[in-house]
Amino acid sequence: MRYVVIMAGGSGTRLWPLSRKGRPKQLLEIFGGKSLLRLAYERLEGLLPTEQILVCTGRAYADDVRAQLPELPAENLLGEPVGRDSVNAVGWSAAVLLERDPEADVAMVTADQIITPADRFRATLAEAFVAAEEIPGALVTLGVVPTSAHTGYGYLRRGEELRPGAFRIEEFKEKPSLDVARGYVESGQYWWNAGMFVWRAATLFAQLERFLPENAAVLHEVAAHPERLDELFPTLARTSVDYAIMEPAATGASGAVVVGIPLEVQWSDVGGYLSYAELLPKDHHGNTVTGQSVLLDSSGCIVLNMVGPEHVVATLGLEGMLVVATPQATLVAGLNDVERVKMVVAQVSERYGAELA
Amino acid sequence: MRYVVIMAGGSGTRLWPLSRKGRPKQLLEIFGGKSLLRLAYERLEGLLPTEQILVCTGRAYADDVRAQLPELPAENLLGEPVGRDSVNAVGWSAAVLLERDPEADVAMVTADQIITPADRFRATLAEAFVAAEEIPGALVTLGVVPTSAHTGYGYLRRGEELRPGAFRIEEFKEKPSLDVARGYVESGQYWWNAGMFVWRAATLFAQLERFLPENAAVLHEVAAHPERLDELFPTLARTSVDYAIMEPAATGASGAVVVGIPLEVQWSDVGGYLSYAELLPKDHHGNTVTGQSVLLDSSGCIVLNMVGPEHVVATLGLEGMLVVATPQATLVAGLNDVERVKMVVAQVSERYGAELA
Repeated sequence: MRYVVIMAGGSGTRLWPLSRKGRPKQLLEIFGGKSLLRLAYERLEGLLPTEQILVCTGRAYADDVRAQLPELPAENLLGEPVGRDSVNAVGWSAAVLLERDPEADVAMVTADQIITPADRFRATLAEAFVAAEEIPGALVTLGVVPTSAHTGYGYLRRGEELRPGAFRIEEFKEKPSLDVARGYVESGQYWWNAGMFVWRAATLFAQLERFLPENAAVLHEVAAHPERLDELFPTLARTSVDYAIMEPAATGASGAVVVGIPLEVQWSDVGGYLSYAELLPKDHHGNTVTGQSVLLDSSGCIVLNMVGPEHVVATLGLEGMLVVATPQATLVAGLNDVERVKMVVAQVSERYGAELA
Repeated sequence: MRYVVIMAGGSGTRLWPLSRKGRPKQLLEIFGGKSLLRLAYERLEGLLPTEQILVCTGRAYADDVRAQLPELPAENLLGEPVGRDSVNAVGWSAAVLLERDPEADVAMVTADQIITPADRFRATLAEAFVAAEEIPGALVTLGVVPTSAHTGYGYLRRGEELRPGAFRIEEFKEKPSLDVARGYVESGQYWWNAGMFVWRAATLFAQLERFLPENAAVLHEVAAHPERLDELFPTLARTSVDYAIMEPAATGASGAVVVGIPLEVQWSDVGGYLSYAELLPKDHHGNTVTGQSVLLDSSGCIVLNMVGPEHVVATLGLEGMLVVATPQATLVAGLNDVERVKMVVAQVSERYGAELA
């Protein structure tokens, strides 16, 4: 049977102070009152029944996930006691589903992007399921046709077409330099690595046993004996699924075949304030504004009032500035400086403690 | 007997959102945890016993005044049911004190300045009391020797010396143009109008009866029958004591004599963020900072975190900016634009209601 696991772990500092340690990006209800997680869930509507949708997240976020996804069956919430990187998220998901259904096919999808249109996304997942089911040993990865020489993404080099619309992935390339990225985009041979995968759970788990046998053994034990989760999960070696499985599997040496399916959608990873603002309307001075605010002589600004309905944010004489107000923190930065927000977060954490960071 | 009345009415928008309608500048505890009112009260220490110090304020601020001045006798808090400008504040104070003591001499002092040193201020008040007591018909006004051609103050032109250190004031000049102000300062004949007065209560009240007989009658009635305060006070015509009494009295036509005493002190009216920041220490990047904050690559800024100890204000890449965070509002402005904060306040009030303004 087919399953989808929404991966909603991770944190990230680039949207601080909207996102904080206890409130990662995916859980922020900043898209018309919905979170990226909620949007990721709704994006699957009609693809699979609710019982076949799972969420893998940090246990600290479990209450928020339940509140945002009241439809989610309790047993479909996989709460990691501690984060152990993506290879263990996919490995644990596969192990849990194999316990329930030895024939499980699994799509691992991310929760931290805006993807439109949703029906095209669902159709791509359906194609990917077919590829995973019909190509023996397939580890299917979704690739986004690049729209720019982005240096912040990983790239997939595609090779021969294995079946209509499904290509062998010959190599994974980590974040390239700008020149290299330009070459990739011009060649037409590369996709962005969307970080979303579809496979038979048994295929993935066999690869995990080959490349990380200790992790596989622990995850098998955890899936079979959930009461040992807190004891065993923290012992797992951390690494990413790309690095530990997909990259070596793409060489063909492990008996698996890495298959790429193009994901032809509009795609934003909301990786920072600039990409978030691109998703919102602008006023006629080029300002992006949420919440109660008064902007005078201000243009090209992003002003986010997340304090609540009893608060107003006012700006006067600003150009190209970011202003974010939350109950815990206020951030004011030049829009040219927002890449360095993580430095601010580090200092806040050092000076005032991790609760504010 | 001598009395001092601290005038703590008024509001003002130039320190918004620190100051707001319900929390005027004088009541903000932003000077090492003390307010300008508290500092004005402490400045009188040793000059007069507590029973001879009164506060005239808006009734809406009475609770805050009592909290900040627990020593103040209950009957010495004069709470105006509505603001009716300075002539009625000084007139009501005189009328109330005349009921208690027909020989009352009164100093009317402001609460909205930082004045140092306090002992020099007290000595000047003592001299002013003597002048008011010894010069028949004297309306004594304190004058500050100007340190710049400020166009935001009124000016006093001084004439002959009536007794050592006490000069006849020949004319009141409202806020002048810059050229005119420069001439005043160069001439050495002008002082800034400090808005502080000393007079026999009977002398002031007689002038009030002459220039504003209806106001005098109402205020006499209110002082004699406090239970009629709410009914009568709102009926008073509004005007300023400078315009209604001091300016015409300075012509000599009313039998009074306007006397100026120089107030040789450091004097800041904390009229806006720039003058407030001048009272606070700067870091080595020229930033003035209060409360929890992280400033990265920021210089020449004023960053005031008034939200509380659970909040942090962070800036990144700012130069010459004002950032003020309070629970009700956040203001971000270029320091060159702070004169226009009142426009922001007007828009906030219009859009979101007077509570936020």
